Amino acid sequence: MSDTGMSPKITGELLRQLRQAMKNCKYFSEPIQAYIVPSGDAHQSEYIAPCDCRREFICGFNGSAGTAIVTEQHAALWTDGRYFLQASQQMDNNWTLMKMGLKETPSQEDWLISILPENSKVGVDPWIIAADQWKNMSKALTSAGHSLVAVQDNLIDVVWMDRPERPSTQLRTLGLEYTGMSWQDKITALRTKMTERKVTWFVATALDEIAWLFNLRGADIEYNPVFFAYAIVGMNTIRLFVDLKRLSDPALRDHLQLDSPSKPELSIHTYPYESVYTELQAICAAHSPKDKVWICDKASCALTQVIPKAHRTPIPYTPLCLAKAVKNESEIQGMKMAHIKDAVALCELFAWLEKEIPKGTVTEMSAADKAEELRSQQKEFVGLSFPTISSVGPNGAIIHYRPLPETNRTLSMNEVYLIDSGAQYVDGTTDVTRTVHFGTPSAFEKECFTYVLKGHIAVSAAIFPNGTKGHLLDSFARAALWESGLDYLHGTGHGVGCFLNVHEGPCGISYKTFADEPLEAGMIVSDEPGYYEDGSFGIRIENVVLVVPAQPKYNYRNRGSLTFEPLTLVPIQVKMMNTEMLTQKEREWVNEYHRKCREVIGAELERQGRKEALEWLMRETQPVV
Amino acid sequence: MSDTGMSPKITGELLRQLRQAMKNCKYFSEPIQAYIVPSGDAHQSEYIAPCDCRREFICGFNGSAGTAIVTEQHAALWTDGRYFLQASQQMDNNWTLMKMGLKETPSQEDWLISILPENSKVGVDPWIIAADQWKNMSKALTSAGHSLVAVQDNLIDVVWMDRPERPSTQLRTLGLEYTGMSWQDKITALRTKMTERKVTWFVATALDEIAWLFNLRGADIEYNPVFFAYAIVGMNTIRLFVDLKRLSDPALRDHLQLDSPSKPELSIHTYPYESVYTELQAICAAHSPKDKVWICDKASCALTQVIPKAHRTPIPYTPLCLAKAVKNESEIQGMKMAHIKDAVALCELFAWLEKEIPKGTVTEMSAADKAEELRSQQKEFVGLSFPTISSVGPNGAIIHYRPLPETNRTLSMNEVYLIDSGAQYVDGTTDVTRTVHFGTPSAFEKECFTYVLKGHIAVSAAIFPNGTKGHLLDSFARAALWESGLDYLHGTGHGVGCFLNVHEGPCGISYKTFADEPLEAGMIVSDEPGYYEDGSFGIRIENVVLVVPAQPKYNYRNRGSLTFEPLTLVPIQVKMMNTEMLTQKEREWVNEYHRKCREVIGAELERQGRKEALEWLMRETQPVV
Repeated sequence: MSDTGMSPKITGELLRQLRQAMKNCKYFSEPIQAYIVPSGDAHQSEYIAPCDCRREFICGFNGSAGTAIVTEQHAALWTDGRYFLQASQQMDNNWTLMKMGLKETPSQEDWLISILPENSKVGVDPWIIAADQWKNMSKALTSAGHSLVAVQDNLIDVVWMDRPERPSTQLRTLGLEYTGMSWQDKITALRTKMTERKVTWFVATALDEIAWLFNLRGADIEYNPVFFAYAIVGMNTIRLFVDLKRLSDPALRDHLQLDSPSKPELSIHTYPYESVYTELQAICAAHSPKDKVWICDKASCALTQVIPKAHRTPIPYTPLCLAKAVKNESEIQGMKMAHIKDAVALCELFAWLEKEIPKGTVTEMSAADKAEELRSQQKEFVGLSFPTISSVGPNGAIIHYRPLPETNRTLSMNEVYLIDSGAQYVDGTTDVTRTVHFGTPSAFEKECFTYVLKGHIAVSAAIFPNGTKGHLLDSFARAALWESGLDYLHGTGHGVGCFLNVHEGPCGISYKTFADEPLEAGMIVSDEPGYYEDGSFGIRIENVVLVVPAQPKYNYRNRGSLTFEPLTLVPIQVKMMNTEMLTQKEREWVNEYHRKCREVIGAELERQGRKEALEWLMRETQPVV
Repeated sequence: MSDTGMSPKITGELLRQLRQAMKNCKYFSEPIQAYIVPSGDAHQSEYIAPCDCRREFICGFNGSAGTAIVTEQHAALWTDGRYFLQASQQMDNNWTLMKMGLKETPSQEDWLISILPENSKVGVDPWIIAADQWKNMSKALTSAGHSLVAVQDNLIDVVWMDRPERPSTQLRTLGLEYTGMSWQDKITALRTKMTERKVTWFVATALDEIAWLFNLRGADIEYNPVFFAYAIVGMNTIRLFVDLKRLSDPALRDHLQLDSPSKPELSIHTYPYESVYTELQAICAAHSPKDKVWICDKASCALTQVIPKAHRTPIPYTPLCLAKAVKNESEIQGMKMAHIKDAVALCELFAWLEKEIPKGTVTEMSAADKAEELRSQQKEFVGLSFPTISSVGPNGAIIHYRPLPETNRTLSMNEVYLIDSGAQYVDGTTDVTRTVHFGTPSAFEKECFTYVLKGHIAVSAAIFPNGTKGHLLDSFARAALWESGLDYLHGTGHGVGCFLNVHEGPCGISYKTFADEPLEAGMIVSDEPGYYEDGSFGIRIENVVLVVPAQPKYNYRNRGSLTFEPLTLVPIQVKMMNTEMLTQKEREWVNEYHRKCREVIGAELERQGRKEALEWLMRETQPVV
């Protein structure tokens, strides 16, 4: 996404300019004493386009999560455990790293209150702060005598001379064989939910929800097949806000029925991307007093506040988000196909690595490139689903590490290798992590790997009642590590889109009890516990798993039970296991998993004539006893 | 607490009177269309005095949790899974039972919105609704065009002819040997926390917090050694609001230093209980603009709203609540002593039951009476800590069952017996559940008991990092049940007071992620998974456990680890276990637990010369293999 590497960005001059802008009354009526730079874009995307990388621009840290705050005297960045090491390496000493999740770390609000002079004004761009975050921050500041103010001109853009243009890539239509449901049926289903809740308007701001709703994909944001757009759905109208130049392709116009809508209420009216604000204003002005507007409480503060408070029905996640999370039969079939192709590429990769590593010529970067090359040979490959984490030895302990020329390490027979990678195929999205050793792992490395494996299996094999929220499963992944005093500072799993974002809501498995929805059959999440020994190695075992009905002995109150079916079918290295530490049940799980890898991936390797990879697969899936 | 039994209360006439009051403009400017009757008192106590049992009075249901709402056409009661059966038996068919926690059950807000005519007014007594509940309810109603109004005269009291007086029992002082900390030191520690957070006033409204703060106990509420009072602590003043007639005892005056305070800032000013409202108004009127007032967001709406919003700092739990939860050495010692005495009484009980049951003369009620009699023989016994749940066969499936003449069942050799009971001793509070069979349990009963035991052990033996919240341990208690498709519809554990309320915050173990504080060494909680087969039997295994430091092999990031030490030392019936289903580790846990029961309780039974109970203990603690 950017060239910023592991050497810190020099920010002294930039901060000087930003602080000058903070005092310049061209932008507001009174100077502000602090300026908040969130990491998102106007759609609160996790991955963002280069033009939206404002937080990275000002502080140098380019991880996916973090908030920078600049005051007259201080500059501080909040990020979570995945990024502590990376952030400390990418920022110069103008910046203080605030390690979220540690007891001693103040919240942004508490920190601001502790350092600001009385009656301070704290500025933020209302388009890139979510409405719920605005509300919390504003409340905390107000209660301490300060105030949060919306600064319409983004102050980072003011000092960012060579800021890139907003992308506008070609749109791709997806047919029923992939989506399983036409956009017309999705609109109708949405309207049914709106009627149930007596809601007359729905504002869609999340890019993946808009892509899913219209069965369209773009390439505006690297790794995420989305496009910049908004949508407003009423009971009889559909408004789509998008760069209108993108709508000239006849196949696309046909897909959206732009020229000959089947029914008036399914006719899509298109508007320029930027006009969403004024159009929403117009809708609200024409409101009947009883009209209710649904908008996600994670939508931008700017757009949310257009809707008069009495008409606004903020929701923690939208009906589209939930509908998108529960995959239909066509999507499940596509995800399975994508994971088979992905496993073929990874078997090839590992077979190749085993051969090449002894020569001492494979690096983290070249291994990542090889993985991409092998994936790209598979049918309907579109691109990667996130930057490959290819890390050797101590680099493996940097949880969201990405190899760069200045950190690039050679793979060897002496160090643990962790590769977390995935791809976008037209039929599905993948995300898999394997941790392997090409020589002889140490007893401690094996011990830690085995704890992580036990946690992975405990989640994957768990049976739990319908209606269980994912956060209730998180501790299963940690119990074996905890028993030995170990842990990992990230969640255990996230929702995975179908040829969409590799991270999606509203379900997941995490100790953080965000508003996660109960797991239900058809949802797809990752299962990825880990262990990281700073300065030494990193371990993570990640499968993408599908929520499926389970049939245990009893059925308490007819609630029904669920469990997981792994979609990822790539061998887990037996050499890294201390099999004596496994219970009989865990050994059986490993053997059954490897049997399925042989059966499904073996057949596909055979079909594709990839002999070496097939031999590697057979070697790596010998039963453990 | 009341005579209301399992036959439904006839409520037709009462509802008619209440609905008349709802239209009577003597009480408000405009009639109200709905009236909410929460179950609490003005202190949001869980157990309440007879004069405060308004929800029970109007609907007949006398469980500890539930909210009644009466409209012109409807009357509905919301309660949770513990009480579904009981509530359905105690209410007549004027009432609709709303089963909380089931997907199809509407929330109170949604239900009101679905049935009320436009622009309705919903009334509630502002003293018995918590500020946070008021806020949520008010917001939901307002967004639907209705409004929530504070009705100063309680409308239940209007129709309640023979409402009892508010109790005013004798106060008991507790010395340092029990409390480990003088009230003066507690006040000083509180003021330190107030200074840290720049708070100048603290309003204490929870009865157990006030009792803990002043090292006093009362008997105003059955089972809870508390007294009706409020306290307001400033940086230099202490105001105690209590029936002034209670303060005549010289020892009490001396304890509180009422006549000769050691320092002016530790001088307690006493006021009548009722004057808290006007006194708080006076304090707020004299406020400096920077004064901040701490009040729990669970305090009454009436008292909270006295404090101007800008000065109010609502907190989910108070510093007293947290300080009280972490027991000091003297309190831990006291709790251990109380549990030893309690175990002696229970060993006596079980030995006696084994002898008496074959005669067919022991009933649920007589067994409960016997348990109370045996406890009362122990030193410093004060009373029970909650109504004894003594239940045979199908009655055991009613989670918070209490035997009454019309339901009283005879203990036999053929049915499972569940007894959940506890006591208040001057040195500590107990709460223990054992499930036993005096004949031969069925294979299914044993199977379920063993799942519950596995869950109990999984929590009790868990090792987890410092800073872990209790809700992250809840699934450990359920995993074995879930694997077979079973579950239980209540939390796994609650905080336990030290000669205080048997349920206290802010820690606990539950799938409900209430604002629970991280567990820390010195906290005391219960561990009580269960299984309930409606119409057949109930199983629960409950110990009170102390959070203690653990010393696992590693110490990740120097965070330290914690585990639990059982304070309850009463044998768990081996006859109910299917020992083949236990792992080696679980068998070792059972044997080590029983070894400790023998060692500690055996010695005390010996000392007290209770031979039969000692023989029973030795028989029941044979190692399992």
